[in-house]
Amino acid sequence: MSIATKFGRMATDNAPGQEVRQSDAVDFLKGEPLPGRPVDFSHGDVDAHEPTPGAYELYAEGFAKGGAQAYTEYRGLAEIRDSLAARLAAFTGAPVDARDGLIVTPGTQGALFLAVAACVTRGDKVAIVQPDYFANRKMVEFLEAEMVPVQMDYATTEPGRSGIDLAGLEAAFKAGVKVFLFSNPNNPAGVIYSAEEIARIAALAARYDVTVIVDQLYSRLLYTGIDYTHLRAEAALSPDNVVTILGPSKTESLSGFRLGVAFGAPAVISRMEKLQAIVSLRAAGYSQAVLRSWFAEEPGWMEARIAAHQAIRDDLVTRLAAIKGAVVRAPDAGSYLFPRMPKLVLSPIEFVRALRLQAGVIVTPGTEFSPHTADSIRLNFSQDHAASVAAVERIATLVERYRA
Amino acid sequence: MSIATKFGRMATDNAPGQEVRQSDAVDFLKGEPLPGRPVDFSHGDVDAHEPTPGAYELYAEGFAKGGAQAYTEYRGLAEIRDSLAARLAAFTGAPVDARDGLIVTPGTQGALFLAVAACVTRGDKVAIVQPDYFANRKMVEFLEAEMVPVQMDYATTEPGRSGIDLAGLEAAFKAGVKVFLFSNPNNPAGVIYSAEEIARIAALAARYDVTVIVDQLYSRLLYTGIDYTHLRAEAALSPDNVVTILGPSKTESLSGFRLGVAFGAPAVISRMEKLQAIVSLRAAGYSQAVLRSWFAEEPGWMEARIAAHQAIRDDLVTRLAAIKGAVVRAPDAGSYLFPRMPKLVLSPIEFVRALRLQAGVIVTPGTEFSPHTADSIRLNFSQDHAASVAAVERIATLVERYRA
Repeated sequence: MSIATKFGRMATDNAPGQEVRQSDAVDFLKGEPLPGRPVDFSHGDVDAHEPTPGAYELYAEGFAKGGAQAYTEYRGLAEIRDSLAARLAAFTGAPVDARDGLIVTPGTQGALFLAVAACVTRGDKVAIVQPDYFANRKMVEFLEAEMVPVQMDYATTEPGRSGIDLAGLEAAFKAGVKVFLFSNPNNPAGVIYSAEEIARIAALAARYDVTVIVDQLYSRLLYTGIDYTHLRAEAALSPDNVVTILGPSKTESLSGFRLGVAFGAPAVISRMEKLQAIVSLRAAGYSQAVLRSWFAEEPGWMEARIAAHQAIRDDLVTRLAAIKGAVVRAPDAGSYLFPRMPKLVLSPIEFVRALRLQAGVIVTPGTEFSPHTADSIRLNFSQDHAASVAAVERIATLVERYRA
Repeated sequence: MSIATKFGRMATDNAPGQEVRQSDAVDFLKGEPLPGRPVDFSHGDVDAHEPTPGAYELYAEGFAKGGAQAYTEYRGLAEIRDSLAARLAAFTGAPVDARDGLIVTPGTQGALFLAVAACVTRGDKVAIVQPDYFANRKMVEFLEAEMVPVQMDYATTEPGRSGIDLAGLEAAFKAGVKVFLFSNPNNPAGVIYSAEEIARIAALAARYDVTVIVDQLYSRLLYTGIDYTHLRAEAALSPDNVVTILGPSKTESLSGFRLGVAFGAPAVISRMEKLQAIVSLRAAGYSQAVLRSWFAEEPGWMEARIAAHQAIRDDLVTRLAAIKGAVVRAPDAGSYLFPRMPKLVLSPIEFVRALRLQAGVIVTPGTEFSPHTADSIRLNFSQDHAASVAAVERIATLVERYRA
């Protein structure tokens, strides 16, 4: 495959955070821009929801330590891995091997890339949920592997379930899938997999000897009444067949430090480290020090953060549901809303541009997550509460302006 | 190719910085350990040669900026790229396009990986100098491309020249090489390419339409009387055929922030950003702020840093040259020494282990850089002056202990 073909499938034109590179010269707008404070729903606002208290002080201590914190093992400083392993084991309900089963990476994206590239080679079949995190598909394409899509009926399933097509998943495994990669809570739909769904995934992976990479980035941000099941604690699944991805970039607002972790199958972690050696060597040395506070936040801090997000969620869901013809499901976890828009005279991509240019609102188009969700938009609602409510009201105004 | 085969060729057992993962149980030692302050020559000591003044304060300002510095374009914050582009153009003698021709990456390793993976796909021929930076070969192997080695007679060539086999390079290009990847100053040999060598490389790359990726990580640390030629300023070479890699991690001791840059061919930089989107998203947001001081250090600071390194270099070269049968060339640039050891009763890898276990000295074995340099060891002499002199004296003592 030529470089041009390979990279042609990895477009970032509509990727979250890249909007600044788009041209403003378009000819499909009508009416005047709407006044209001701009809101960038493509990612969370770490000014509205600040980094965990003490994070910066830990960074400063790390810098003061000098070379010992600047240069660590490629998989991260041993002492930090030791303390993290115990906390991650308690959180997920299964042992974590600090020496051989845990790696610190530059961001959760770094962990995901290394995990996928350490398990998938050219021609391998990889099961990917639709919709799911937009980079999953692109990593499979970069590795010249074959994506086997599995559908998820997130919009109509009951709370606490994802609606994944388990028969479709088994068919994919039966057809020779080697790796199953999925996010739980799901990004963009905000649903979580029920205990039954996780048990079934574990049983299927064991039966067909599939390695599972589960991206649990939002698994700490669970709303009232929601139970979460950790795949790696399932007895049916061999610890050698599962790698879990987590990081402090979202709920904890530590994204600017670029930190992630992967933990699980030692053979996979070992290959990930070999790859990290040529991809980035290690997570930023001083940044690693910030992990000392992770899963050790002050009592009540996480509860307050969840409550703040739940309140925003509820206000935005109410306003989105009031748009005639829109379909919105309240997320069980995480900070994403993924409403389906009614029929408009603009194409979905044109509408996303119109939101940016006329409403001061940046959202991510649904096509980034699945070919079947073009009429949805993704909003990361980890934002200033009042500003995000006003922004969603502007979205509603533009829907009416462009309604078909 | 299976995952096991692919990763089997990417071993990090002897990679610099990974020594802590080696077993201490060996049976080939004789005699007692030597007393003395341990020295880790596998990388520079940022406690002995501290980060650029003001670097930490810039980081603190970046953190205080919050979301605007935490979340940047994948290729780095535009305002930082703007100021860097002007400085990099002045340094290298050719224009740098801040918008489309420059990307900020997690470390120089990140820049190298993205550049190579954005230019090389499976089966492509890539010319690699022997010896050269140990990751070059591994990146080519990860991409399932074909390495075409080109020899460099660094030990006997005159100062200011690398001794690259230009006839061998042309033969490689003629045989269909698509990409030429090399470090200048060379890591590990510490030689630089002369104006004539660079002009010839440019002419050959133009003639055979080869893309050149040049890793100039040490190009600011030039010793007395040495001239440096920037490949990208060569008129013969199309700007679309060259990408330059640089970073503040070495001479400036900013490694703990993990920052690098690549600049040059816009089409390559664009592919690199697409790949960064799935590999790590971006360099750590707050860390990017540290680049504001890069190439804008206080007057005299760089001169003092170079003088300190030149003094260490001279003392170590004198002591290594006094070892009977050792071959050492004083580096023209950078902070690496790559002496060849005399014949010993231990294998080269055993001797490297003996140095660690009996002399408290960590060095990197020559096999990491070329199959033809097994009897050499690499020392990064960016260390405490007195401690590194004492450490080299211990190396000399162990050479006598194990001399064949």
